[in-house]
Amino acid sequence: MWEERIQKVREWIKEKKADAVLVSSAYNIQYLTGFIGLSPYEREAFCLVDGEKTTLVVPMMYEEHARSLGKQIVLCIDGERKGLLPLACSLLQGKKIVLIEEHVLKHTEYVRLQQDGGEFRSAELYIEHLRERKDDHEIALLKMADELTKTVLQKFEYMLKTVDYTQFSELQCTDMLRTMAIEVGGDGLSFDPIVASGVGNSQPHYRTSSKKLEKNGVILVDVGVKYHGYCGDLTRTFLVGDVSDEVKNVYAAVEAGHDACVKQVRIGVTGAQLYETLYSSFRESGFLQPMPHSLGHGVGLELHEGPHLKPSAEQALQKGMVVTIEPGIYRAGKFGVRIESMRVIE
Amino acid sequence: MWEERIQKVREWIKEKKADAVLVSSAYNIQYLTGFIGLSPYEREAFCLVDGEKTTLVVPMMYEEHARSLGKQIVLCIDGERKGLLPLACSLLQGKKIVLIEEHVLKHTEYVRLQQDGGEFRSAELYIEHLRERKDDHEIALLKMADELTKTVLQKFEYMLKTVDYTQFSELQCTDMLRTMAIEVGGDGLSFDPIVASGVGNSQPHYRTSSKKLEKNGVILVDVGVKYHGYCGDLTRTFLVGDVSDEVKNVYAAVEAGHDACVKQVRIGVTGAQLYETLYSSFRESGFLQPMPHSLGHGVGLELHEGPHLKPSAEQALQKGMVVTIEPGIYRAGKFGVRIESMRVIE
Repeated sequence: MWEERIQKVREWIKEKKADAVLVSSAYNIQYLTGFIGLSPYEREAFCLVDGEKTTLVVPMMYEEHARSLGKQIVLCIDGERKGLLPLACSLLQGKKIVLIEEHVLKHTEYVRLQQDGGEFRSAELYIEHLRERKDDHEIALLKMADELTKTVLQKFEYMLKTVDYTQFSELQCTDMLRTMAIEVGGDGLSFDPIVASGVGNSQPHYRTSSKKLEKNGVILVDVGVKYHGYCGDLTRTFLVGDVSDEVKNVYAAVEAGHDACVKQVRIGVTGAQLYETLYSSFRESGFLQPMPHSLGHGVGLELHEGPHLKPSAEQALQKGMVVTIEPGIYRAGKFGVRIESMRVIE
Repeated sequence: MWEERIQKVREWIKEKKADAVLVSSAYNIQYLTGFIGLSPYEREAFCLVDGEKTTLVVPMMYEEHARSLGKQIVLCIDGERKGLLPLACSLLQGKKIVLIEEHVLKHTEYVRLQQDGGEFRSAELYIEHLRERKDDHEIALLKMADELTKTVLQKFEYMLKTVDYTQFSELQCTDMLRTMAIEVGGDGLSFDPIVASGVGNSQPHYRTSSKKLEKNGVILVDVGVKYHGYCGDLTRTFLVGDVSDEVKNVYAAVEAGHDACVKQVRIGVTGAQLYETLYSSFRESGFLQPMPHSLGHGVGLELHEGPHLKPSAEQALQKGMVVTIEPGIYRAGKFGVRIESMRVIE
């Protein structure tokens, strides 16, 4: 599997008439080598792929894990993390044209790379685009992550129906979700989940608080179980206790919009078309509000990856892509409703 | 508090003879505005500080939260996240010299900024350096995060002593720690905790697995409780069941090294001096192994921040800094021992 991916990268390097690519994105490195657990935020590794070998540059503290990945990987270990980039630069000696990830490298890193000479060209989003179309192995893992997330949400809904939920704070609920994710066999969660009760859930990216769940109204839960490094991502909005007609109407509108989009998601459809479908469904329900966030996104090793479903997206969905569909309507200071599903394009 | 911080930034802008600074780091934005919850990885906001005002540029989904921060913040909202940078650029019109965070900006973002003309200069690590010396409010929060983390570790140790821990997997233990963090009043955890039993803990950044805890040997726990956005960070290595003399000797050496360093941490001491102390203590215990990771790091809004305690660090510790001390000795394929504390320099 890794060899197949590396092979594609090698062919692309050849096409670009380059000698190598220096991979900097933690997710791209994971995709090409199987190295799980690199921080996407702190620079903890580089990976150099050329026509013959794949060289992983990691700090000493990752040495044992890196060596366990197999013998196709040549390692260069450096005691201090600050030394990774100079070490990567030294690997580039003698290579004429190197592709680099300009969208991942910090500007200061870019400047350091240039120091030693050589010609650099943009790798653009080649590996990210490769990652957009999942292979069978990845689709199986993503379907499992999705199944496990559904199970967790069912358990959570059962809790809401059977116990006095007003005894729990939102934070306690996120903690419950995490415990459930491990119980059902996941690695844990794909992201800090959102549990928003009452006023808070009018903010699409609400910060979960220690406030207790309110008896009446809306409880929005956005959660994903991670499975073998792949991210689940689902949102359910539960209506609990006494619910106003306004809430019910908004819920019905979001549900109708969600269902219409999910029905339409298939090979060849664009983000722009999905937005048309959504807004036409919203209009039928009597709502004219534009979405304050995008309608959906690709999901895989990374929670948010390509393809991005935006109003301007003219790119057609392709076989093997895995996307979320997550329409929402939010009433500032009052409440919000979002429903999100994951769909494999096949 | 925010005004005081912004005021310092304004004075620095003046000193640098610039018109404004464009802040891109999620942590720096949080430090200057109080906006909690921005992803440190995906670019979700920019903050422009000039002589008169502080302008926060956030996508529409953060509008409600951003507005709640108070009226000193002028907002520019943009529906699609891709539009944030062009929007930030438009705010720069008419400003001659703008300081930018070249170590935070991706190279592609840097190139986009240059497109519209104007002169850019490096902000270097000014705000990061400002953040290194904590004010009283921050120190109180960090001490609380540290206290809560200690409490969680005590609870965990009590569990190890009173129940059959071999029934729990490492992942279930991390989940327990998270539940405890919320029980004791924290926001949650500062990072995905490490619980490593048996062979795994010879890797300093071990990836916690679904393997059950082993009856005999070493259980390494690296965990931090987050409190009001500030990160706790502690490591304890518990010796359980039958323990070999080799393990006991390594433990004693790490403990002696840890205690010697903690005793020495005060105003004026450098990272280099602390390493000398550590290695001299290791030598006294009969160990010559170099550390595979740094001896410690600053901690605050960010888990790893300045000052970084490295063998080459000649910078003297200053009043208000908060650092971890975390020596460790690792025997590849066998076991590892690390002990970590947090210390306020006062």
